[in-house]
Amino acid sequence: MKQINLFEANDFADKGLKKFLVHDSPYFKIINFNFKPGQELPVHSHDIEGQLSLVIVEGTGEFLGKDGTSFPGRPGDVVISDIAEPHGFRATSHVRLLVTIAPPI
Amino acid sequence: MKQINLFEANDFADKGLKKFLVHDSPYFKIINFNFKPGQELPVHSHDIEGQLSLVIVEGTGEFLGKDGTSFPGRPGDVVISDIAEPHGFRATSHVRLLVTIAPPI
Repeated sequence: MKQINLFEANDFADKGLKKFLVHDSPYFKIINFNFKPGQELPVHSHDIEGQLSLVIVEGTGEFLGKDGTSFPGRPGDVVISDIAEPHGFRATSHVRLLVTIAPPI
Repeated sequence: MKQINLFEANDFADKGLKKFLVHDSPYFKIINFNFKPGQELPVHSHDIEGQLSLVIVEGTGEFLGKDGTSFPGRPGDVVISDIAEPHGFRATSHVRLLVTIAPPI
């Protein structure tokens, strides 16, 4: 077993969201993104099979979707998206977001 | 996209840990387990390929491994285990644990 604490492993950056690779295996990829208020993971998608989960560990923001859509996010939120479906996130406070992608890309 | 809030979707039970299926797809299965202090997900394993992540969203406890081993867990912890490797969890406070299994079993 491997243990990582998100609060210790990653911090925040002024210049943009701070990415930390938690795990990568043939089964899934797990990435932690930390945002300062106003920082954004722009809407994107990949035309491949698979799904991802986005979990808000700390903070608040907006999940972003296709055509400029958005909906509010808060601690404890789990959002599931196809990898092929446009998805993104914008922070309104300091946010720790955990993203799990299966299969890994 | 599908959105679930763990704090709204699941509560706690006196008789044992409270399980809530967040998501199940061909890519991964996501389960939320809520524990009252002292409640336990007993050590277990399955002899199949794949890995799982255990994320402590709230609370403290102990991750359990083979041969009675354990190590402390706290909010923000992400633990990765092979599905075939013995794993479990015991809560020392109210705990919300998020488990992601890929491929789903």
